[in-house]
This record gives sequence, structure tokens and C-alpha cells, in this order.
Amino acid sequence: MNESMTLFSVPGLPMIRPGDDLAQLIAEKIESAGQQLHSGDILVIAQKVVSKAEGRLVRLSAVTPGERALELAEITGKDPRIVQVILDDSHEVVRARRGLLIVEQKSGWVCAHGGMDRSNVQPVDGEEMVALLPENSDASAEGLRARLAELTGAQVAVLISDSHGRPWKFGTMGVCIGCAGIPPIWNQRGLYDLFGYELVASEECLVDELAGAAALLMGQSAEGRPVVVIRGYTPPNLPAAPATVIQRPKEFDAFR
Amino acid sequence: MNESMTLFSVPGLPMIRPGDDLAQLIAEKIESAGQQLHSGDILVIAQKVVSKAEGRLVRLSAVTPGERALELAEITGKDPRIVQVILDDSHEVVRARRGLLIVEQKSGWVCAHGGMDRSNVQPVDGEEMVALLPENSDASAEGLRARLAELTGAQVAVLISDSHGRPWKFGTMGVCIGCAGIPPIWNQRGLYDLFGYELVASEECLVDELAGAAALLMGQSAEGRPVVVIRGYTPPNLPAAPATVIQRPKEFDAFR
Repeated sequence: MNESMTLFSVPGLPMIRPGDDLAQLIAEKIESAGQQLHSGDILVIAQKVVSKAEGRLVRLSAVTPGERALELAEITGKDPRIVQVILDDSHEVVRARRGLLIVEQKSGWVCAHGGMDRSNVQPVDGEEMVALLPENSDASAEGLRARLAELTGAQVAVLISDSHGRPWKFGTMGVCIGCAGIPPIWNQRGLYDLFGYELVASEECLVDELAGAAALLMGQSAEGRPVVVIRGYTPPNLPAAPATVIQRPKEFDAFR
Repeated sequence: MNESMTLFSVPGLPMIRPGDDLAQLIAEKIESAGQQLHSGDILVIAQKVVSKAEGRLVRLSAVTPGERALELAEITGKDPRIVQVILDDSHEVVRARRGLLIVEQKSGWVCAHGGMDRSNVQPVDGEEMVALLPENSDASAEGLRARLAELTGAQVAVLISDSHGRPWKFGTMGVCIGCAGIPPIWNQRGLYDLFGYELVASEECLVDELAGAAALLMGQSAEGRPVVVIRGYTPPNLPAAPATVIQRPKEFDAFR
């Protein structure tokens, strides 16, 4: 059982640009903050900086909206070019209403704008850019984990986080869209409670809880602290798996 | 900006019974663990122990299911008495399918079984009991906060947490269903990002992120660690409010 844990953010990361060695920058900044990575640490990294390092950027002025995008722009009140970018990176529109466009993004995450985002993306030649999710956030997490091991010798888990809204509630929260080196879900079916009743529906999504915790130290506007280290939390002894195992297939989903 | 924070669970709490002074038990166990509460600490307390202390327990054998409960039991495959208990504590059925009953509980939370739970509830005279949510979790949080201040002199925030499932994803996570002494949401509309673009949709649900973090140290089966202290996290300087401000009214909800 975990009795305590500590979280700290990594200071001083520069603006990330396409091609940057993100793992190296993170390792350097942890070291210059007088810290070092330990095996067993969990690194939560904001999707935005991973997307930037991977060059997942689209120049808005180069986008020509098609018919479906124009139609959805009319319904939602959004920029038709933005809608086109979202459609190009999605499988399915889940809800479209004024001010709201929820899709299943190509990696399988259901979220507003398919995770596409324009905040904190630096303009290029004065032109506005938007950032897409990584092509494969689990692979990105795996790559960062391997590179960090190479650079520091520490075997860490890596989570890539994003902020998602929720039905029924106001406010977003940090969630995990890619991970490596950690079991995303703790399936407690078959465990027993204090009185011996079998727990019927206890599957805890550990990586979303970890990403949510890290978000508290990231902020969302101009703080520039996109990497948080979680220390002292030992996940249950289960095989590591990609974050996509959390995705509920449509046929098991009462809300699609 | 918050740069680090620490979480620890409170060991040694006994089984909670109706009428117990929960705040006093918590204060005692923190002290006997060699800790003390500080002003600014955030206590996350599992709903189950609050419900038990408040006597929110129903003896299943005393429940007679009505027509609607029998109908929904047929659809969902659940015990008709359980369904009746859920209906009695709810405003509205949001989804009913085999194995699934999602309602808007009387306090306004949309969740499976209206938060009603049978795990870790001690039988009374050999008879099975189930626990309902507190009548008013915000008031419960406020009461615990006031009592803890009286006992320890520390001005803490109190969150009452529960585990909720989510559409589109497997696994539950810890969320906040009642709070006191903290702003539940950080509305960042009107703030600017690193490049001066106004953030259009940044409202972060801090209390759900805090409750999720705490859940990692609570476990859900036989651990018996229903109280977690979060230290070092300073919320934004906004007025405290009840957790009900997070509830999205039905007319603004695309999923009802």
C-alpha cells in the first residue's frame, strides 16, 4: 500500500520546437534544479510539448475547409479551418452544437476538438499554428521512457497528459492519453472488501488519477511547467500496457 | 505557482459507526502517526466513512421494491431492493441497460447507482446494509472543517470524495462530491497564454484533480485508508464555494 507520495514540477524548460530532444531537455532541467530522476519515478508530460517536439503543427492559413467542415462550422460557430483540421484528425463526430465539437480523435480519445489546441503554440513567420495530438501517444511515451533511461539510467514510467472536459460537470481535468512502463488500470474484480464481499465493479484508472494530480502543478496558461515528477507512488504489480486499453469500445458505451 | 506538493494517508482509523465524531477520530490518528494538521492542508475524506458516521445506511431486508424498481431490475439485472434504494435517493434515471444504472442522485451528481454502495459496509445483526451518499456533502465537508479547526486550530480545506466511472473510458476515478474552504473550479477565462492569445475554454476542476490524487493512496478494497492529507498545494486566490457549482445544468449538457 502506498502511504505517501510527492510531486514536483520541472523548472526552466524552454519553448519546445520541432525536432527538439525533449527527453534530454527534461533530464537537463531536472539536473540543473538539483534533482535527479530515480527508477520508479513517474513523469507526467503535457501533450502540448510532445506534439511540438514531434512537429505535429498545422499552419491555419494553409487549410481549405471542405463542405462538411463548413456545415459543422455553421452549427458550432467555430472557424471552418479549425473544424477542417479537427475532422482530418478524427474518426467520428460524437456531438456538434453551438460552441461544442466533440469527436473521437484518430487515436481513439473522445474529446473536444480532438485535442487540437491553439494556446501556447508559437506563431511561425507571424502565422497562427495549431497543435494536434501526437500520432501515437503511447509510442511517444515509450520513446521518451527509453531515451530517459539512456540518458539517466533511471527506469521511469512516462504519462502523456491532456485536459479533457466531462459530461455533467463543469471544468476540465488532466487525463492520460499515452503511457509507458505502468499498468493504466487496476482491475480489482475478484478482490474482497473488509467484510468479505467480492468487489463487483472496482476498476480504478490509475493513470488518469496520476495525470490529474500532475495537472495541479502544471497550470494551463502562461506558467510553462509542462513536466511533473511523481515520486513514491508504486503501482500495483500488474503488466504495463498502453493507455489505449482504457478506451471503452463504442458497443460498451452508453453515451454514444 | 505551486512547485511541489505531498500527500499522505492517515493510518489506523477504526471502522466508523453511526454517531462517531469523525473529525475527532481523524485528528487523533493524525497525531498518533506523529503528524499534525497545518492550516492550508487539504483533507480528502472518502464518502463512505462520512456516510457511515452520519448513519446514511439502509437495511436491505426492510426495502420493498415498487413497480418502477421491478421494471428497472428486469432491465439492468440488479437486485430490485437495491434499485428501489437508488430510486428513493435520485431525481432522474439517466441510463438503464443490462448491468448499468446511472442516475442523477438527489444532490445533483450523475453517477452509477447514485453513489449507493454495499462494499465495506458492516452488516448489522447479520443483515446486509448499503450506504447512501451524505444528504448534503458540502454541508458535511463544512461541518468537518469547522470541527477540525475547533480540535486542532488548523484552518484546512475538506473534500469528500467518491469513485465515479466515465463515459468513453474504462475505470473509475476519485472525484469530489462535497467541499469546504476551497474554490472548486479555476476559471481561467480572460487569462492569456504565453503568446498573448486569450484562453477561451480553460476552466480547471481543481477539486476533482485533488480527489483523484488522493484516491491513489486510498485504494478501494480492504486497505482502510479513507483519509488523505494533501500538503503544499495552494489554490488560486478565489472565493471558496460548494462542490455543487461544478454541476452542469441539464440544459448545458450534451449528454442528457
